Amino acid sequence: MDIKFMKEAIRQAKKAEAIDETPIGAVIVKDGKIIARGYNKRETKKNALLHAEIIAIDKACKKLGGWRLPGCDIYVTLEPCPMCTGAIIQARIENVYFGAYDAKSGCLGSACDLSGVLPHKIEYQGGIMKTECEEILKNFFKNLRKREK
Amino acid sequence: MDIKFMKEAIRQAKKAEAIDETPIGAVIVKDGKIIARGYNKRETKKNALLHAEIIAIDKACKKLGGWRLPGCDIYVTLEPCPMCTGAIIQARIENVYFGAYDAKSGCLGSACDLSGVLPHKIEYQGGIMKTECEEILKNFFKNLRKREK
Repeated sequence: MDIKFMKEAIRQAKKAEAIDETPIGAVIVKDGKIIARGYNKRETKKNALLHAEIIAIDKACKKLGGWRLPGCDIYVTLEPCPMCTGAIIQARIENVYFGAYDAKSGCLGSACDLSGVLPHKIEYQGGIMKTECEEILKNFFKNLRKREK
Repeated sequence: MDIKFMKEAIRQAKKAEAIDETPIGAVIVKDGKIIARGYNKRETKKNALLHAEIIAIDKACKKLGGWRLPGCDIYVTLEPCPMCTGAIIQARIENVYFGAYDAKSGCLGSACDLSGVLPHKIEYQGGIMKTECEEILKNFFKNLRKREK
């Protein structure tokens, strides 16, 4: 785990915020280098699939030229939902490092734990730069509520 | 539930088989009409995300012009994995009808049950045209083993 990669995931989250998307960002790392970045584009692209992690996995598969991403880790600002946890497992990513916990939809320990359910097991660590990752989301929803009043 | 839609999902699975992909097919139905079809292209496109359901959801979002797919049902020949079950939930699909059960990775009752874990609940029914859906997979793996000898 290297904190600099979570900082880059946070930068990605801020790109989502800048286009009025729920600010979540992700990066995929292999051999100490970022090979793919992603941020949430669900509203902009009107597509349920386009979470930060899915965008990053799509790019990483294209970059490495295969559906398996061996030796890869993912850093994401929020605990992944079932779709993204599942995609991480499908892509054979090894380690997941996430920031804020998601009590409602997080599938690495909060709403449920998918890490050991399937044949490919993943390791994970949550709460990395937790306060910063939470603040981005809190501010976004606070501003959203203000505008909606 | 209308059996004719599972028959179309099976036709999609056979398209996957024809290109040497694990034969899994899916269709999305709204108001009694098929609005999107998909079949597994993971190997062909070298991309972990490209399961039948994901391809169909992607097309349905584009067709309906939003990330929510209200009033939509999905028919799929195999019990969805966590990624696809999660994507179905994210897209707010209402009912899932699947054929064969997947003891190792199925997330609607077999390996786990994600249907009621998250805020959006989905309804599901498994075992539809079970024998036919199982046969396609069994034959595919039998032929694969023969060729690999």
